[in-house]
Amino acid sequence: MAPVKLADYLFTRLRQLGVESVHGVPGDFNLTMLDHVEPAGLNWVGNTNELNAAYAADGYSRIKGLGAIVTTFGVGELSAINAIAGAYAEFAPVVHIVGTPARQIQEERTLVHHTLNDGEFKRFSQMHAHVTIAQTRLWDPMTSAEQVDNILVQCLLHCRPVYVELPVDMVDAIVSGDRLQTPILIPEPQPTPNLDDVLLKIISKIEAAKQPVIYVDGESRPLRIVEAVQQFVSMTKWPTLTSPFGKGLMDETEPNFIGVYQGKFGPKAVHDFVTGTDLALCFGPHYSGTNTYMWNSIPQSKETIEFTTSGIKIGSDFYRDVSTRLVLSRLLKELDMSKIASCSSMLDLPRYQLLAPSSIAADDIIKQDKVWKVLGNLIQPGDIVMGETGTPGFGVREMPMQKHCRVFSHVTWLSIGYMLPAAQGAALAQKELIAASKWHNISTAKTILFIGDGSFQMTVQEMSTMIKHNLNVVIVLINNDGYSIERFIHGRKQTYNDVARWRYIEAPSFFGAPKDTYTASAKTWFELNAILERYKLNNAEGLSMFEVVMEREDAPPGQLQKVLEMQIERELKN
Amino acid sequence: MAPVKLADYLFTRLRQLGVESVHGVPGDFNLTMLDHVEPAGLNWVGNTNELNAAYAADGYSRIKGLGAIVTTFGVGELSAINAIAGAYAEFAPVVHIVGTPARQIQEERTLVHHTLNDGEFKRFSQMHAHVTIAQTRLWDPMTSAEQVDNILVQCLLHCRPVYVELPVDMVDAIVSGDRLQTPILIPEPQPTPNLDDVLLKIISKIEAAKQPVIYVDGESRPLRIVEAVQQFVSMTKWPTLTSPFGKGLMDETEPNFIGVYQGKFGPKAVHDFVTGTDLALCFGPHYSGTNTYMWNSIPQSKETIEFTTSGIKIGSDFYRDVSTRLVLSRLLKELDMSKIASCSSMLDLPRYQLLAPSSIAADDIIKQDKVWKVLGNLIQPGDIVMGETGTPGFGVREMPMQKHCRVFSHVTWLSIGYMLPAAQGAALAQKELIAASKWHNISTAKTILFIGDGSFQMTVQEMSTMIKHNLNVVIVLINNDGYSIERFIHGRKQTYNDVARWRYIEAPSFFGAPKDTYTASAKTWFELNAILERYKLNNAEGLSMFEVVMEREDAPPGQLQKVLEMQIERELKN
Repeated sequence: MAPVKLADYLFTRLRQLGVESVHGVPGDFNLTMLDHVEPAGLNWVGNTNELNAAYAADGYSRIKGLGAIVTTFGVGELSAINAIAGAYAEFAPVVHIVGTPARQIQEERTLVHHTLNDGEFKRFSQMHAHVTIAQTRLWDPMTSAEQVDNILVQCLLHCRPVYVELPVDMVDAIVSGDRLQTPILIPEPQPTPNLDDVLLKIISKIEAAKQPVIYVDGESRPLRIVEAVQQFVSMTKWPTLTSPFGKGLMDETEPNFIGVYQGKFGPKAVHDFVTGTDLALCFGPHYSGTNTYMWNSIPQSKETIEFTTSGIKIGSDFYRDVSTRLVLSRLLKELDMSKIASCSSMLDLPRYQLLAPSSIAADDIIKQDKVWKVLGNLIQPGDIVMGETGTPGFGVREMPMQKHCRVFSHVTWLSIGYMLPAAQGAALAQKELIAASKWHNISTAKTILFIGDGSFQMTVQEMSTMIKHNLNVVIVLINNDGYSIERFIHGRKQTYNDVARWRYIEAPSFFGAPKDTYTASAKTWFELNAILERYKLNNAEGLSMFEVVMEREDAPPGQLQKVLEMQIERELKN
Repeated sequence: MAPVKLADYLFTRLRQLGVESVHGVPGDFNLTMLDHVEPAGLNWVGNTNELNAAYAADGYSRIKGLGAIVTTFGVGELSAINAIAGAYAEFAPVVHIVGTPARQIQEERTLVHHTLNDGEFKRFSQMHAHVTIAQTRLWDPMTSAEQVDNILVQCLLHCRPVYVELPVDMVDAIVSGDRLQTPILIPEPQPTPNLDDVLLKIISKIEAAKQPVIYVDGESRPLRIVEAVQQFVSMTKWPTLTSPFGKGLMDETEPNFIGVYQGKFGPKAVHDFVTGTDLALCFGPHYSGTNTYMWNSIPQSKETIEFTTSGIKIGSDFYRDVSTRLVLSRLLKELDMSKIASCSSMLDLPRYQLLAPSSIAADDIIKQDKVWKVLGNLIQPGDIVMGETGTPGFGVREMPMQKHCRVFSHVTWLSIGYMLPAAQGAALAQKELIAASKWHNISTAKTILFIGDGSFQMTVQEMSTMIKHNLNVVIVLINNDGYSIERFIHGRKQTYNDVARWRYIEAPSFFGAPKDTYTASAKTWFELNAILERYKLNNAEGLSMFEVVMEREDAPPGQLQKVLEMQIERELKN
């Protein structure tokens, strides 16, 4: 292979790994780097700001398996850092490439802009070390190509963000192109000496189980076991629940799929069933308070096996470094299906159901207890369904998904403002996969974003990037006049939970969408019904948006209603 | 004094120091803290996101001497961190108060939300340590009041951001209220043993000077010597120039005020004059590349005295810890005015002049070479004039200021997106000072923001906060279809320097302004003239906005034009 310029090397590697679009914002320390984006066969997204760009790269990476963002030194990278931390917390493989000042400028401590004017150039990389899984500074042409390969492997393997510094004067540095002929592969785990023992223990527990449950959590995705777990679920036909983080990873049209397990906050029959099981198989557990209904939905079974990113836990015995991926692939081959319990009699559990808006009194105002079951009618096979932190995040958990849908809802980082730019990234990834006939043969799939008014205000400008790239996105704005979820937690009458009142549905026009872009607003079921009828006739093409107006203190049933009731009780006591 | 709750203590201290409004965004780890804002006599601003809130607090602090922002742990504080770094780089005294999880949650490493789900709670404070002058964690009621006082002193003294962690369960912790009776004062510097010597050296150089120049830079503000320098300028009547950072600190209506010194990029007569001086007195120097026209406008005089934040430099001798503030106050008293040079004959230097739009051919398109001299007609005494990074930042430097104007333009951090939220903060501070009759007896003063389209897109939603608080702001949008300043530097035809095309003047309506809010658009001098005539008749009340459409590659004369010419030369060579 001929020698290549370092920037070409980096972008070629990204392209080889399936990245087709690079998110980011130009800045004077990355401009020459950006000259290399399109020649490498990549599309430049061009976001409105860096926080949004990083959120979008996160959304893109969760659909395509890898995402990339380019920012500029200091100002750009620090604007993005909250999103990078979120990608770490929730496992999004994002490559954050920062264009930094030339090496000599740094070595001589020159007082250039985008610094604190003190000659220090390593502050921002040190800050990123707290929120990325690996960092590299491309300083020497002799080692840079290998550094790039190594950091990309770490990004893919851990499914977490990495940080790459590319000084302006290294963009055109000549590096060997030899490595480009060898594809970058995620290293496969090696069997540990105790692997057979662990597998036998698991098999014996599975064979002994009479009333088992499968609990699929979101770290199944970074573990790269989603397909294997799906196969296990289909094969065993055992009752299957997910966490919020796991929602959308399994085929929800399978008869043994029940829904999101909410512990004591969900249907009593489901909770009683789970607590009565004699074996819980927990795949990819992620036990943050918010992903487990304050630790209420961690399955309390007689016996539990956890398949985690660091090993396998059987009861209280933890087998570190025993690969979940390896064990699961062996399990699928070696399990004798004739020996496992048939659970068809256990499947008579309540499930989330859609609701036709026409079945509700037309003139009534729209309420949280039914709205999500009604809005679920928007969803078609292959859609990406996104529920921003707040009531929409709870809402999407109650929507039954069609085949090949993917779901984003809040899990642990819970940074409001994330979901709208993430929708841009996810919709772009979906569009690329549709174009490559890699989206389940569904060419009409779209991305549906459910979002509250407070969250919408945070990062609203990324709508313009959806418009610019002609992405198929439906934005459903839940307008309940403020930060409702915070009203439920504390300060339900306090003005600090208010937000300014915008004319929300003017957004597409302001951000440059064609003047005939569909927008609508609904306060009653009748109005909402008319909107949903319109979507039946005319599936999403490009951007459209409608607003659903609801009351400030209308909490959806379940955990949020309990939280609100507790606040009112406290008020009565004081 | 009765004991008080810690949150009340903190907010009372801020109120005592002149803070009247607290910027920020609610989040579940700060909600109970926010209950204490209004009872302490403070106004809650309620921004749309944390980056904007911190930019706004920075703008507010530069006008009022102290600003405050409240965010929530992790997601909120990291969104704000780029703005906090900017406040550090450019000397804005901002108190960043973060609501953190309860102490027990942290000590037990509980996996709560807004963490990386790993039980680590100190990452984000460690990240802030890189970009704040002091940090404190309020963990013990016995020491918390003193910790608050100490950190506020550091914020005021260094005029730089500080970081305060307030765990949820410390909000209501009972602390002694005794200290509240003693005002917080910035410690006055003590005379060093060599102070008299240094003063004598300075006086002898001043008396010996025949052709001196005064150069006022922006660190005069954190040095708290602006008034003393103004007195020196008025007293000596010596030719006075400023840096971009110093622009707006001096009274520009004085006859010896020349303008912003641009080195070889400005008028030749000014450059020749400065290089011919025999003494340059440089107050508050801040020699970043961008504040000095790539180090071209650092006065190259025969002799130089620099009055800095860390001491005084005479020629190459640096007297660390000799207080600029002390020396200057002594100098004003002890200088014998009869012994210093009269410089009236040196004042025949070119100055920036206003231009009447009616003097330009009406149908011509608007061009950069004249537009700033025309737009300067908007400025009235007491206005705050803000030029966002980009061509507007260069533009405002060319506008002659009226009495009591303040100017914001880009200096070192240069984070595009800063200026619009900073305008919200500055306008709010100005409004509070007008209400208290502390704004030079000018009740009609307004804030004028000049901003390019690329910057506008970054943080546009903070317009809604201007509307919500009914601030008097004129937004002048320079629409040249992309990141023009970056086009000048590199990639003038590259699409990565494009931005999406918005319908900009729909912004006020979208963000909820009254439907009769003034908006306009101008492509010709005739149209611009009509807009300026309207402002003559009807000074700003509330928000108004107009757009000035210009060509993509129209660079203003001076440094930017040179930069563009260099790029075109490089292209011709390749």
